[in-house]
Amino acid sequence: MGAADDRLERVTMAHGAGGRAAARLVQERFLPHLANPALAPLDDGALLELSGRLAISTDAFVVEPLFFPGGDIGKLAVCGTLNDVAMCGAVPRALSAAFVLEEGLPLEELERVVASLGATARAAGVPVVTGDTKVVPRGKADRLFIATTGLGERLPGVEVGGRLARPGDRVLVSGPLGDHGAAILACRAGIALSGELRSDCAAVSAAVVALLAAVPGVHCLRDPTRGGLAAVLHEITLASGVGLELEEARVPVSPATRAACELLGLDPLGLACEGRFVAILPEELAGRALELLRGRPECPGPLDIGRVVAEHPGRVVLATAIGGRRLLDLPEGEPLPRIC
Amino acid sequence: MGAADDRLERVTMAHGAGGRAAARLVQERFLPHLANPALAPLDDGALLELSGRLAISTDAFVVEPLFFPGGDIGKLAVCGTLNDVAMCGAVPRALSAAFVLEEGLPLEELERVVASLGATARAAGVPVVTGDTKVVPRGKADRLFIATTGLGERLPGVEVGGRLARPGDRVLVSGPLGDHGAAILACRAGIALSGELRSDCAAVSAAVVALLAAVPGVHCLRDPTRGGLAAVLHEITLASGVGLELEEARVPVSPATRAACELLGLDPLGLACEGRFVAILPEELAGRALELLRGRPECPGPLDIGRVVAEHPGRVVLATAIGGRRLLDLPEGEPLPRIC
Repeated sequence: MGAADDRLERVTMAHGAGGRAAARLVQERFLPHLANPALAPLDDGALLELSGRLAISTDAFVVEPLFFPGGDIGKLAVCGTLNDVAMCGAVPRALSAAFVLEEGLPLEELERVVASLGATARAAGVPVVTGDTKVVPRGKADRLFIATTGLGERLPGVEVGGRLARPGDRVLVSGPLGDHGAAILACRAGIALSGELRSDCAAVSAAVVALLAAVPGVHCLRDPTRGGLAAVLHEITLASGVGLELEEARVPVSPATRAACELLGLDPLGLACEGRFVAILPEELAGRALELLRGRPECPGPLDIGRVVAEHPGRVVLATAIGGRRLLDLPEGEPLPRIC
Repeated sequence: MGAADDRLERVTMAHGAGGRAAARLVQERFLPHLANPALAPLDDGALLELSGRLAISTDAFVVEPLFFPGGDIGKLAVCGTLNDVAMCGAVPRALSAAFVLEEGLPLEELERVVASLGATARAAGVPVVTGDTKVVPRGKADRLFIATTGLGERLPGVEVGGRLARPGDRVLVSGPLGDHGAAILACRAGIALSGELRSDCAAVSAAVVALLAAVPGVHCLRDPTRGGLAAVLHEITLASGVGLELEEARVPVSPATRAACELLGLDPLGLACEGRFVAILPEELAGRALELLRGRPECPGPLDIGRVVAEHPGRVVLATAIGGRRLLDLPEGEPLPRIC
């Protein structure tokens, strides 16, 4: 089948049915982008050699559109899961990927997604060791969905968790917030400033591992995805029984994201990131941590944005630039559906 | 919210959006059925203690209808993945589950699926340690899809794989073939004999682990899901570079499944099972293996159905009852879409 014909080919029900057509789809469209020794035998699962203390995380990805400024569903499906594994204090070692494809999806589009997924995993040094593909009839899914699971080896001596924030701790963020949500929103709405907006979609696991290795004693790590900074900070206040006080002027938001949010009446702190993280750690470690993060390419502008307090447990208070205080509300839901 | 109101409640876009509504959905509809210590912290992932040699398997489940005689998508999502982990020669230890929900799905229906998934995992002694839920708008998915990933500890000294079949080996099956495919088909077509047809959906991992422990030296293990016995045997002949000769009269098919297949012009050997497995092993071990499997509740009628040969590599030949020989063809695809 020549390259010119490829664009005409589409996913058919037979591609999901476990016979010759399914085998060809895997051989021709998946393996060239994912090849690695663990995947090669194509048995019912894959064999791994990992040391004993592990972390596992899983996510389904249904982002719309499939391709957006700064990424696509394949890149997102790898970054989102690697980041979640890293947030458990673990070094990601293996990924699995399960695809649900809609009949009629152009195979060229599928292959672009698989290629992006494979390239992102390879760049992070984490193989996709096993996978699955299902097909549903036209109109029963929206082009394609991906569920990934990540496995990591926990760093010795590291214990992080949403329950471990303590009064006096500092709250660090790794870069500007809300860019992924703003980029998807602009992309869908076709608004004029979309050219400047790019998703922050990236694997931050290497930066997190470097931080945990160099600065032992981090209490909490979270990536502010759905619901943005607001959602993760609320989860932490509830799990730890503490309050948070942030200086609004120090919370980083890019000019393009801020402009888009003002236009649309949204709070950037409620918008998803896909390449940022929040670290909460004892005050005496904050300086070293910031210094380390400033040297990492995954952290475009790390900042100390506030502190953990014993007062008002469950609440996140923003001290505004003009001397006021406002409550950072936990939204009923992310303002955008299908952000990831 | 009283029980009477529950049926009126439906999945909304906010349930997938990482805010209060999403947190309530998890608390009220998922945790009561899945609770276990690893899941409890609800961090971005879960922490596990497993020994070093692992197997991992992942599958997406899109079966239609969601509920069928003998099972439902929740039970299937657990059994399918536990069985795949067992086919790697491993004891399943942990599961993850990612859900894609269609806006408008009744919450009562979701909860029935989650309850079934939780009960099946609990019965198998394998906790669901982490998960995810996404929601897509009405018409962008078909009610609900689930992707599960299973992790297992490999049994010491066991090496199984599709490449390891050797001439002289015997081919065992654990029970009648094609019941899952026939039950789904009858269910969808509403054909009269559907009352007798039940999916074989079941976790066979405990039987497989018992077999591997008692009879070291098994070469291949496979569960004949999509594409049925025909697909898995073809995969093995190709991977091992061998041929297979089966005695057609010894290949077990239940009367109800045989009747449904005759009515519809289908070959039961091309229909999916979800609670059966094939074991290929040296002839001298076959007797002990059969004896062991006969004592297991997961194996309703284990049989020796044929042998591996050096001749006609890549082909599966059936010796018919009347003395003829026919080739078991690898179908282009499973005759039924969305079988699992």
